[in-house]
Amino acid sequence: MKLSISVVGTGRMGSALARALLRSGYRTTVWNRTKQKAEPLAALGATVAGSVLEAVNAAEIIIVNVSDYQATAAVLHDEAVASAIRGKLVVELTSGTPHGAREAAEWFAEHGASYLDGAIMATPDFIGTDAGTILISGPRQAFDANEEMFRALGGNVQHIGEEPGRANALDSALLALMWGALFGTLHAIAVCQAEEIDLGELARQWTAIAPVVDGLVADLINRTNAGRFASDDETLSSISPHYGAFQHLLELMEARKIDRSVVDGYDAIFQRAIAAGHLHDDFAALSQFLGKSR
Amino acid sequence: MKLSISVVGTGRMGSALARALLRSGYRTTVWNRTKQKAEPLAALGATVAGSVLEAVNAAEIIIVNVSDYQATAAVLHDEAVASAIRGKLVVELTSGTPHGAREAAEWFAEHGASYLDGAIMATPDFIGTDAGTILISGPRQAFDANEEMFRALGGNVQHIGEEPGRANALDSALLALMWGALFGTLHAIAVCQAEEIDLGELARQWTAIAPVVDGLVADLINRTNAGRFASDDETLSSISPHYGAFQHLLELMEARKIDRSVVDGYDAIFQRAIAAGHLHDDFAALSQFLGKSR
Ligand SMILES: NC(=O)c1ccc[n+]([C@@H]2O[C@H](COP(=O)([O-])OP(=O)(O)OC[C@H]3O[C@@H](n4cnc5c(N)ncnc54)[C@H](OP(=O)(O)O)[C@@H]3O)[C@@H](O)[C@H]2O)c1
Ligand SMILES: NC(=O)c1ccc[n+]([C@@H]2O[C@H](COP(=O)([O-])OP(=O)(O)OC[C@H]3O[C@@H](n4cnc5c(N)ncnc54)[C@H](OP(=O)(O)O)[C@@H]3O)[C@@H](O)[C@H]2O)c1
Repeated sequence: MKLSISVVGTGRMGSALARALLRSGYRTTVWNRTKQKAEPLAALGATVAGSVLEAVNAAEIIIVNVSDYQATAAVLHDEAVASAIRGKLVVELTSGTPHGAREAAEWFAEHGASYLDGAIMATPDFIGTDAGTILISGPRQAFDANEEMFRALGGNVQHIGEEPGRANALDSALLALMWGALFGTLHAIAVCQAEEIDLGELARQWTAIAPVVDGLVADLINRTNAGRFASDDETLSSISPHYGAFQHLLELMEARKIDRSVVDGYDAIFQRAIAAGHLHDDFAALSQFLGKSR
Repeated sequence: MKLSISVVGTGRMGSALARALLRSGYRTTVWNRTKQKAEPLAALGATVAGSVLEAVNAAEIIIVNVSDYQATAAVLHDEAVASAIRGKLVVELTSGTPHGAREAAEWFAEHGASYLDGAIMATPDFIGTDAGTILISGPRQAFDANEEMFRALGGNVQHIGEEPGRANALDSALLALMWGALFGTLHAIAVCQAEEIDLGELARQWTAIAPVVDGLVADLINRTNAGRFASDDETLSSISPHYGAFQHLLELMEARKIDRSVVDGYDAIFQRAIAAGHLHDDFAALSQFLGKSR
């Protein structure tokens, strides 16, 4: 017989998690602060709990998905709930910082609960599909024992380490990479609009160069990982040509009155690396200049 | 019989251009300020000119590839050279701004030369290969008449418009997108290093999410092009969840003393859009907030 699971928080994401569990046949109890948002799940077979305590008592595994860790604390840091949670497994899928996950792990350990912290790398429509990605950190054994349930949430649910902060840290790292690409796209759009270049043309060119950019990203990570900062035979583009071409972008943005705050941030990193003698080193050498104190 | 072509400037890129022309059987004359850098091309069949004037006189088409437009002016803005250039086609493949290309187009028009301005979107090793990409702007007829020569330089040499500044503008736009991804990667690397996550793990995760990010970039361009800023059924992630998750990155970077200048630039754009009431609109709505005056 399948486990009973409670889902605490049925906003857009929590509802998707509950639906995926119901589809896989789990006995699912749901609770939401605003009860109306939980009620549609009853038609799919969920039990709608009248209180958090009821939801906690109803299941061996409590999946939490509210807006942030403060909301989790508001819901669970209650005397009756905290004592009901002993011996259960809490899977926190709310987004947060690594620091927040470490604090939460301590609090649950103090209250005798097992704790896994996850970061959902997907929109709700991917939950329960093969492409649904969730990173999980915390005790490996708690993950392995419940692999079947995790697979119900997404085909790409991965345990990435025991340290509870790891899932949130890797989440933030991957989002930083994504925002880099998205804000870079906003700059590209601003340049095209200022220069009256049709955005359809930009989209076509992007399709052609996307694999090249993806490869440069991978190369940047791998070179930094290996500490290969010196320009070598593979490197036909050191910091110097990058920085030369970058001047044209700065000039164009200045002339067209496009906000330079992001690119001035790039400039500061370039300049620190160049001042330290890296002009003819690989672009990856810039990775040494993101510390605040330098 | 194939045309004669002169290549003015045989640095890393200019030498690659000359080699590609020689491989395709063009009678090629080369000139470089520092003559030694041109001499290896003689062994491949090039004529090494003793002066710029000699190089200009030797050919119908003059390809210029020096470090910047100031260098082009230093080389060509000479009375004898300027009069020898009348009736010839100048193809400027030096990188620069759209403004610089427009000024150059005027100068060449005044001196009776045809002018195409190009932007090389490739490192020298791609020149002469199928993947070699060069964007060309200027009179379409001058491009069409010499398509065979352009194909010798790269399989993906494209005429993108008559306006002379267009190639440089699109070049800067695509580089802005690329730098966005690369600086985003530097942030991801800094987060992983601070949180002791192996960069091999980051590289693996990147491989998995790269197609997702590429799709988000394309979607951002297409939505902006269509003015579809309102969140609709397709949009499961409006600015609101982005901005929520972004707070965790800011907090983590602050705690780990990672330079926030670039991400503070993102924050300013987010905040302007949110202040203007776009919290629940699509991320693409941010594209309206890159103007300097707002
Ligand atoms: N949506 C996505 O695409 C996505 C992707 C990855 C990760 N996530 C993460 O998933 C989590 C939920 O996101 P979502 O999109 O589902 O957000 P949402 O639709 O806004 O839902 C937020 C949920 O949190 C509850 N909540 C907030 N404050 C509370 C409090 N003080 N006490 C009790 N409940 C509280 C809300 O209850 P009420 O209904 O009563 O307000 C609601 O159930 C967030 O951490 C988000 O970062 C979302
Ligand atoms: N390398 C790439 O991957 C790449 C990619 C795309 C675009 N580009 C563009 O291609 C152009 C050349 O780049 P590169 O990599 O070949 O640079 P490079 O190897 O540094 O060569 C620079 C060339 O410019 C010449 N030059 C500079 N100032 C001059 C002056 N005042 N008078 C005469 N000649 C002068 C140099 O002559 P000397 O030899 O006498 O110094 C040399 O031939 C640049 O605009 C660059 O942005 C390069």
